[in-house]
Amino acid sequence: MNNKNNENWVQFISMSPPGLNNNTADVDRLTGQLKKQLDIHSIEMDRSVMVSLPDVLRKSNFNVRCVLFGYDHRYQLIDVQASNTCLPVYGLAIDLGTTRVVFRLLDLCKQRTIIEITIDNPQSNIAPDVLARIHYTDQPGGLDHLQRLIIDAINAQIQHMCKKHRIDSNQIMCISIAGNTCMTHLFSGFPPQAIIREPYIPVINRQMLLNAKELGIHINPQARIFVFPNIGSYFGGDLISGILALDMHHQSETSIMVDVGTNAEVVLGNKDWMIACAGAAGPALESGVSKIGMTAGPGAIERIKQDNDSFTWQTIDNKKPVGICGSGFIDLAAVLFQSHMLDIRGKLVPNQCKDRLLNIDDMMHFLIVPAENSATGRDLTISQVDIDSLIRSKAAMYTILTTITQSVGMVLTDISTFYVAGTFGAYIDPSSAITIGMIPDLPRNRYKSVGNTSIEGASRVLLSRRDIESVSQIQKHITYMELNVNQEFMNRFSAAKFLPHTDTTLFPSVRT
Amino acid sequence: MNNKNNENWVQFISMSPPGLNNNTADVDRLTGQLKKQLDIHSIEMDRSVMVSLPDVLRKSNFNVRCVLFGYDHRYQLIDVQASNTCLPVYGLAIDLGTTRVVFRLLDLCKQRTIIEITIDNPQSNIAPDVLARIHYTDQPGGLDHLQRLIIDAINAQIQHMCKKHRIDSNQIMCISIAGNTCMTHLFSGFPPQAIIREPYIPVINRQMLLNAKELGIHINPQARIFVFPNIGSYFGGDLISGILALDMHHQSETSIMVDVGTNAEVVLGNKDWMIACAGAAGPALESGVSKIGMTAGPGAIERIKQDNDSFTWQTIDNKKPVGICGSGFIDLAAVLFQSHMLDIRGKLVPNQCKDRLLNIDDMMHFLIVPAENSATGRDLTISQVDIDSLIRSKAAMYTILTTITQSVGMVLTDISTFYVAGTFGAYIDPSSAITIGMIPDLPRNRYKSVGNTSIEGASRVLLSRRDIESVSQIQKHITYMELNVNQEFMNRFSAAKFLPHTDTTLFPSVRT
Repeated sequence: MNNKNNENWVQFISMSPPGLNNNTADVDRLTGQLKKQLDIHSIEMDRSVMVSLPDVLRKSNFNVRCVLFGYDHRYQLIDVQASNTCLPVYGLAIDLGTTRVVFRLLDLCKQRTIIEITIDNPQSNIAPDVLARIHYTDQPGGLDHLQRLIIDAINAQIQHMCKKHRIDSNQIMCISIAGNTCMTHLFSGFPPQAIIREPYIPVINRQMLLNAKELGIHINPQARIFVFPNIGSYFGGDLISGILALDMHHQSETSIMVDVGTNAEVVLGNKDWMIACAGAAGPALESGVSKIGMTAGPGAIERIKQDNDSFTWQTIDNKKPVGICGSGFIDLAAVLFQSHMLDIRGKLVPNQCKDRLLNIDDMMHFLIVPAENSATGRDLTISQVDIDSLIRSKAAMYTILTTITQSVGMVLTDISTFYVAGTFGAYIDPSSAITIGMIPDLPRNRYKSVGNTSIEGASRVLLSRRDIESVSQIQKHITYMELNVNQEFMNRFSAAKFLPHTDTTLFPSVRT
Repeated sequence: MNNKNNENWVQFISMSPPGLNNNTADVDRLTGQLKKQLDIHSIEMDRSVMVSLPDVLRKSNFNVRCVLFGYDHRYQLIDVQASNTCLPVYGLAIDLGTTRVVFRLLDLCKQRTIIEITIDNPQSNIAPDVLARIHYTDQPGGLDHLQRLIIDAINAQIQHMCKKHRIDSNQIMCISIAGNTCMTHLFSGFPPQAIIREPYIPVINRQMLLNAKELGIHINPQARIFVFPNIGSYFGGDLISGILALDMHHQSETSIMVDVGTNAEVVLGNKDWMIACAGAAGPALESGVSKIGMTAGPGAIERIKQDNDSFTWQTIDNKKPVGICGSGFIDLAAVLFQSHMLDIRGKLVPNQCKDRLLNIDDMMHFLIVPAENSATGRDLTISQVDIDSLIRSKAAMYTILTTITQSVGMVLTDISTFYVAGTFGAYIDPSSAITIGMIPDLPRNRYKSVGNTSIEGASRVLLSRRDIESVSQIQKHITYMELNVNQEFMNRFSAAKFLPHTDTTLFPSVRT
């Protein structure tokens, strides 16, 4: 067995059996030895562990294998088994998203993934987004209902994964949960109302260790549930998990991580300092506001390129196009701008668009896919209003990036690595986003699409004590900046509403 | 409200309400202020307290009254109420005896007793003593059954007391439990089998903080249950509670506390050191072994005096005599010895006993109460075998006292105060016990009958933080001495089997 891998979780303890001149009690004998071996001053255990101890100690002749969950010199003894048992120890990492929930079951001794599953967050059926979900908790029983839904879903997936891989759910000793502030509140049963009302106050920001049994999660009853801390109502544990996954807190060079959904969440920093903010980037970048806007899924146009006079588009899973997702919309705007069909104000230019311009309900629309090629049998079009909305979103994003960078006396080109996280980051083409002036004109190799960093970080805390101890350090390390929408911010925003920007020297690689 | 009295339990906290530039989360805001106010570095709270926090904080405009249970800089936040509520805070002290259970309900703010109730331990119906109870737990479900019995009884008494005094049981915020090692094990659901099997190992010795809700005790669900620590299998939390109640750990002069039941438990010491031991003193001193032996209760002969040639006896509650309890038996032996009806070997002397000597079933019996005066309608007699048993008990007691005293290089006359605890202590006449050589021949005013010190100590930990913090200090302060029954012990025991002793210079006040 790999000792290095095990010691985060499993400690083998050999005690001298008691005698008339060595009559320390069972619990005191075990904790004394554990404290000595781990060089720590405190170990906690549930009453139920104590109940089982005399039998285990005597049957094993005082040679046991302790499953521990610990950090910051505070250890929890979760299970005690005879040393000669070699049962695996599992942990479950959960990325608790508003829309999707990702489960990754890990073998903690072998340090490997057993299975990863993604499901829709069942709370979406009640209310699609954070705002609607919080409003739902105003109803009597609303909070309980939402909590029940997510816990039932977690139990169902645990049962499913355990059955499929012939795993005893009792051997799952820990869960780590990274989610936004609202999702972890709903999971924990905390009233989330104050999150969305000025001055936007969560019930708790600091990390928590909850009990599986108390929450009704069907794994080892003594298992602990580690809930990532938040920075505030709009900067949640999923982002702290992301920072951990990217090791931003260990890097000398300054990097930035951007996660875009309905909000843009941004963190900038290095091993010495870290600053974070969040701001409304508009829904255009997520599922869009247009009739054909959709989240990235089968049939979504995710990529658009100009090929001489015509466009080529690519859909997810190569299905017939159903609609357009954020990355496709950004590509489209870039292509339209570069072919002069959009002017620098973001307005469609009739002379250039020619027969692709349709007048529907008295509003200009640009035809992306004609009815005969679409999955819906209808023209897929985007209106001037949709484009205006995208322009506001991209301007907001660029303004947020400028504001946070300038707040620490830096300029955007000082950023060594630009991490684009989340589903959005997985699809976006940085060149297109640069072309429309949404993100800074950095060498393309400084952009890194990092996928789901939240599940990565949630996994890391289960695999490494150093990483779990980093979590509270990261939280304390971050300064949260309120984006006060003042005159300076508005001036910047106005300048960023042009394509790519009023100051074209900021975008030397974009031919205007 | 008395601030001094309150601060053990209740802290009033005024926080500045949150704002856009002061957006600390609710839990973090409250704990931050509490830590500052109490100058402590850690506060724990259950998830359920966090759940209720946003509502309480906003309804009270961030002025709250926190009910805390804390010691050794480790605080538990049990309840948070709006500052303008003035609900009382109650605590329940329990002396968990093998035979009887004493409840004392306390108003923690006013520092006064509401009611005290004594009941029989319902486990007695299953098995009368520690040994039988532990054997009962060998049966499947036996431990659960015994635990259920005591917890049900506690709940019944709580309900009764609350109803009688119109108290909301939700305002009972803490229970303290002092009992012998076996009783606290059965209460906690810990397998007690190893307690009575060599090398006599408890599951746990250190003090515990359990959860009322988890144990199914119907008070405030967040209430904590403080269980006194043990020194070992034969020196339990009831004695540590007694030491606390007597303040032995603060005294400069050396005192001794003796608690006599089936075992004699002895602790000797002062503020600088403390040594404890326990040994079998024989059942003669508790309920007796004779046919008419009984525990101290209505109709028990508790006192016997010689009045010229006849005896006068006194019963508990002045009922017609039913039997004889330990203190009466000691008086009887002293009277018989002083009137030469017992010789120095403890044998009945026919010449002296005359017509009080009966031959029953070929064995000499001494007639205490003739049939016509007894409640049973039968002669109340004591046999030579019963007397022999008493002699062995008194010899064991004196030998234990000598051994523990000599182990620290002292003699018995160095003891400044001799505390006699428990029911036995409440009835015993030290002069009689000295006459038969059971306890040392000290000036009578050094003997103090201290009653139920266990319930006193259990009450004190609820009323004073200094006292609760003393508990673990007392436990660590005590050195437990195994009474190895070696040749030296046997020699001392043989000498102590004479009345009062082979060395009469040890008992100058006893005329032989």
